[in-house]
Amino acid sequence: MIIERLAIVGVGLIGGSLARALREAGAVKSVVGIGRSRSNLEQALALGVVDEITQDAVLGVRGAQMVFISVPVCSIPSVVAEIAPALSPGCIVTDGGSVKTAIVRECEALMPPGCFFIGGHPIAGTEHSGAAASFATLYRGKRCILTPTERTDAAALELITSLWQLTGAEVCTMEPGHHDRIFAEISHLPHVVAYALVHAVGTADVEGENVLSYTAGGFRDFTRIASSDPAMWRDIALMNREALLKSIDGFSASLAELRRRIEAGDPQGMAEFFTIAKQFRDGIL
Amino acid sequence: MIIERLAIVGVGLIGGSLARALREAGAVKSVVGIGRSRSNLEQALALGVVDEITQDAVLGVRGAQMVFISVPVCSIPSVVAEIAPALSPGCIVTDGGSVKTAIVRECEALMPPGCFFIGGHPIAGTEHSGAAASFATLYRGKRCILTPTERTDAAALELITSLWQLTGAEVCTMEPGHHDRIFAEISHLPHVVAYALVHAVGTADVEGENVLSYTAGGFRDFTRIASSDPAMWRDIALMNREALLKSIDGFSASLAELRRRIEAGDPQGMAEFFTIAKQFRDGIL
Repeated sequence: MIIERLAIVGVGLIGGSLARALREAGAVKSVVGIGRSRSNLEQALALGVVDEITQDAVLGVRGAQMVFISVPVCSIPSVVAEIAPALSPGCIVTDGGSVKTAIVRECEALMPPGCFFIGGHPIAGTEHSGAAASFATLYRGKRCILTPTERTDAAALELITSLWQLTGAEVCTMEPGHHDRIFAEISHLPHVVAYALVHAVGTADVEGENVLSYTAGGFRDFTRIASSDPAMWRDIALMNREALLKSIDGFSASLAELRRRIEAGDPQGMAEFFTIAKQFRDGIL
Repeated sequence: MIIERLAIVGVGLIGGSLARALREAGAVKSVVGIGRSRSNLEQALALGVVDEITQDAVLGVRGAQMVFISVPVCSIPSVVAEIAPALSPGCIVTDGGSVKTAIVRECEALMPPGCFFIGGHPIAGTEHSGAAASFATLYRGKRCILTPTERTDAAALELITSLWQLTGAEVCTMEPGHHDRIFAEISHLPHVVAYALVHAVGTADVEGENVLSYTAGGFRDFTRIASSDPAMWRDIALMNREALLKSIDGFSASLAELRRRIEAGDPQGMAEFFTIAKQFRDGIL
């Protein structure tokens, strides 16, 4: 047993799976589920994901040694602001948001003395959401990034690391800004590109015909991420704006270079560009 | 029986599957396989995909009522130039290339009097290639686009249409330029974007770290098409350059608009853009 009482704010796929994994590992005695949706909380309770439920975050975090926040990234600081005065001494607050710099900066500043905020980002997910979609092995073999700062308490970091390791995740740490620049490239940029591509193709006017009716499996696969939740990506784009703009500009420069080679009808230049990209892509298989 | 003798130039997945489908439908009496790779031809013969094989295209097309050409798009006109003098009167030549304007223009001009070229593009494929990957049902329920022109013989078009329908394909016809503008949008542009994205992310310098090592399933799925054959996409980009450049510019304008909304920190404008794209994407499911 590592902690007596864990509070999960947002008992969805991410929060629910963390609760399940830590219970299964025997790392936590009781879990309280906090959320806005009564029906999701009741489902979490009925499924045994959590032991108690409440829609009152201030009430819910009382007596918890650890609070995990898994709500939309824009809401994380306001949740932390709400619960901060109610935290028990020594409580560690962490999150699962896919943007870190803004969250860590705001949340660290909100912590009362003797409480600690450590940013986290488990790299896991499925296409499903809600407590009913959660499962104990979601994090097994996945990476979980923690983003401590110079203000981070070493013992608190060690505790969070142990907990994530008990879920089967491989934990690594990095500076929040480094995290955000990496994920701007490998996650936020691809979503922006996919949305822009589907937007462009969907609004393309080819003699007035709806070109999307000719798409086959390849296009559907390529553009799947453009079916993601617009509100979630709006929030991520807002919160990682600076790094994302830089990534977009890097991509635009690559595309402009490729366009230049196509316009020049430069077969060698095109083949080189495609081959370099293919090598990068094949390298991540 | 619709035709006595069919010649397939390039007995790979596309050509081999057409041969198999037409034999299975009882539409063709004998099939000659023509190609450069002796081992692939021998495999096609051993598997019963074709009845005869030859590496000599001029010899192979003798006596054929129909010639189907399934070689890289840049090579189609030179194959047609080579076989044209050997074609039997009334022979119909067609192809499976994913670019049509340049091919149709060049190949129509090469036809001897009484022979007909009709451009075709079956929208089917798998990730495998070669005669061994071919199967009779590849085209079932798939679309096959034929691109007749004002010079096209009506009876020849009717025959090709019947043959494709016997494979289970749904045949539609359109003007070659219209085909190329549609496929620039839904196929050629996505490949260019995927190559440019992987190129940009692969060369991104985030404090000297290889960001590709952090990619997960989403990035791999999104960028799968950047593992396509560079030579094939070089050829397609060369042969559909004009339409492709226009598609790239349309995409760049969409991306610039989205970038503008992100830079402005405009939550409503971002959400609107993402929602429109999501609706287009969900509409093609």
